[in-house]
Amino acid sequence: MLMREIIRKKRAGEPLTDAEIAFFIHGYTAGQIPDYEAAALLMAICFQGMDERETLTLTLEMAHSGEELDLSSLPGVTADKHSTGGVGDKTTLIVAPLVAALGGRMAKMSGRGLGHTGGTIDKLESIPGFQTALSRERFLRQVAEIGLCVASQTGDLAPADKKLYSLRDATATVESIPLIASSIMSKKLASGAQCIVLDVKCGSGAFMKTREDALHLARAMVRIGQGAGRRMAALITNMDIPLGHAVGNALEVAEAAEILRGAGDEALRKLCVELSAQLLALSIGESVPVCRERAAAALCDGSAFEKLCEMVQAQGGDPAVLEHPERFPQAKHKVEVLSPRSGYIGHMDAEGIGRAAMLLGAGRKEKDGPIDPSAGILLHKKTGDAVACGDPVARLFTCDEAFCAPAQELLLASMQFTETPPASASLIYDVIQ
Amino acid sequence: MLMREIIRKKRAGEPLTDAEIAFFIHGYTAGQIPDYEAAALLMAICFQGMDERETLTLTLEMAHSGEELDLSSLPGVTADKHSTGGVGDKTTLIVAPLVAALGGRMAKMSGRGLGHTGGTIDKLESIPGFQTALSRERFLRQVAEIGLCVASQTGDLAPADKKLYSLRDATATVESIPLIASSIMSKKLASGAQCIVLDVKCGSGAFMKTREDALHLARAMVRIGQGAGRRMAALITNMDIPLGHAVGNALEVAEAAEILRGAGDEALRKLCVELSAQLLALSIGESVPVCRERAAAALCDGSAFEKLCEMVQAQGGDPAVLEHPERFPQAKHKVEVLSPRSGYIGHMDAEGIGRAAMLLGAGRKEKDGPIDPSAGILLHKKTGDAVACGDPVARLFTCDEAFCAPAQELLLASMQFTETPPASASLIYDVIQ
Repeated sequence: MLMREIIRKKRAGEPLTDAEIAFFIHGYTAGQIPDYEAAALLMAICFQGMDERETLTLTLEMAHSGEELDLSSLPGVTADKHSTGGVGDKTTLIVAPLVAALGGRMAKMSGRGLGHTGGTIDKLESIPGFQTALSRERFLRQVAEIGLCVASQTGDLAPADKKLYSLRDATATVESIPLIASSIMSKKLASGAQCIVLDVKCGSGAFMKTREDALHLARAMVRIGQGAGRRMAALITNMDIPLGHAVGNALEVAEAAEILRGAGDEALRKLCVELSAQLLALSIGESVPVCRERAAAALCDGSAFEKLCEMVQAQGGDPAVLEHPERFPQAKHKVEVLSPRSGYIGHMDAEGIGRAAMLLGAGRKEKDGPIDPSAGILLHKKTGDAVACGDPVARLFTCDEAFCAPAQELLLASMQFTETPPASASLIYDVIQ
Repeated sequence: MLMREIIRKKRAGEPLTDAEIAFFIHGYTAGQIPDYEAAALLMAICFQGMDERETLTLTLEMAHSGEELDLSSLPGVTADKHSTGGVGDKTTLIVAPLVAALGGRMAKMSGRGLGHTGGTIDKLESIPGFQTALSRERFLRQVAEIGLCVASQTGDLAPADKKLYSLRDATATVESIPLIASSIMSKKLASGAQCIVLDVKCGSGAFMKTREDALHLARAMVRIGQGAGRRMAALITNMDIPLGHAVGNALEVAEAAEILRGAGDEALRKLCVELSAQLLALSIGESVPVCRERAAAALCDGSAFEKLCEMVQAQGGDPAVLEHPERFPQAKHKVEVLSPRSGYIGHMDAEGIGRAAMLLGAGRKEKDGPIDPSAGILLHKKTGDAVACGDPVARLFTCDEAFCAPAQELLLASMQFTETPPASASLIYDVIQ
């Protein structure tokens, strides 16, 4: 088989055979197919797309390209969730213990973040003592014992995806529904869970800017998962404003704990209840409305919060910080940002707020760069809120005072003040099953 | 400047700035831009194209990427011709001495061939003693003295094109009008001639299969040349049947000599007269009809043949072979191919005939592979000719008898026999100025 011929076919808009896709993934992972041939094929895929069969085959080949987690020894039905990522997205910290408290088995491998804020792993590591690098045996034992573990992804999960993603990043071939869908789903399939719920974000703070693109991506991923024999659901959710009020690692863990104790931001709670209900329904076979009620109840009765404390304890962290956020690492500088005028917050650019948090130290500026667990932003006011001139709209947290002025400037530039309140927007646009 | 951003722009269909194109060509030629970034950009160009300005800039940057021939020391107006290549295309061997005999200055750098038969250089090297690797000084001196030199291209002419062409070949990004046009024209511009005539072939034996594609390519190349200040013309010509009767290196030199002595194939003579007339008109400022008459006369009065003999002599070859073709290297085996039926030759697949000639040893099967100067095919019959069953239709020439049977099979499969004569086809479709 010749890569040139495979590239030519895709360039001409012809579908590739399963054997051709397997040849590409095996050869590229093994280093036998050079980057330039892969880059040309990726660009041709960006223009010509891939049909459902091709996308499933590509995903399965990538999932099989390295180690795969075998969760079959675990009792019960295993569950996983994935978010395509947004600003202030701490839903995994809430949904995982919530689902586990209600009988689901959350075996979750998660990643570190490159961008606005850390990934789930970075957030959890802001808890003093918390361990995320677990052996496979310990990971499985903890899920068996308490129904819940969130650990960092091992290096050998879907290595083909890792290698291809770097190449796509370098060659402007990231934006492609089949390539994005297969990249995400190859890792999910290799992680082994039977039920998977996807939170596909769309809006100013998300990778997918429009609801239509988000729908395409969600449908492609749900079809891949179902094609691979998994139970799937996906939500399309609003990422035009940051999720909740906290943006930053320790700040987000504290906000997650608040939700799990039955308090906190209404929209964030609602989204977490919906994600949990979908995942539970897939896991335990009850209807979504029944699961929704149970999830809401588990936030009020303390059982979900208890589950998070159990996980923190099991992974070596100090659960006391969850009730006493002042015991988290504290930022040296806390600066209030005041509203420059009176009126309403008519619009927020979530991505701009994410970049302000990154500037303060909450996110990585480069791969493998350091992260400041205490840095970030607490939003006092969000889209739709009334403000008077001089009212505090947000608090900045950082260890380097030099970042305060540019972060404040970026934050205020990301907020649009209006005379009249904006129309209210939906939080959850669509559910796909 | 970031390649990723340049790739992204082209992928999105935005034109690249001159600075971006220069950055790409400089960086890629210098080895600072990796092949995978270049491959992604090339594939994006295949889909999104390049406008006239971008194509001109790309061509100029490639032309300037290495040495450039400075012909300004030569007296008179310098001229060059280029054919996009076809089966049996020996026009350079005829046009160059013909134009030189009429006062043009043919300073022609030419290439070796990969494919059906050799390039012009391979053909000339079938003349015993003929030298094609000349120093720059000797090349210029010969043009100054006799108005004519055909030498092999130096390695440093348009190195960016050489490197990009290899990458395009490996990544199925050859087919793209702006990339083909800039590749051809970068070498022509670097070769320095003031007047350039292009022979853009279309049909079964050519790279461009349709007249429309050939027209697009010709127009793109003419615009590039004019944009670079050169005098340009292009012919779109028929390559549905091989040009003339000979396919193979020594066989084609012998056929060229025949035309220059006022005899030979009518269509081949007509095309050479037209190419020469266009080139002369650009060079000496006379009208095309006047130049056409002069060119036809120079074939009859022996002056064009005399000029070829002068060139062969000047480059160390034995001009006697031109009048005595039996002194060329002779193939060991000469086999007549007989018509399997009576009727007419209704159609010929020129590419199939070219492949049969390559099989006999006339072309390179791999890069830098050997070539047999004596091998090839002499077509006794061509499209439109009547044949009786058992009539010889062609003669095969080879040094390896094992190739005769498969070449004969391929040759006959490339000829379609019909009951009635086919409609006659044009030789020259269009002239672009």
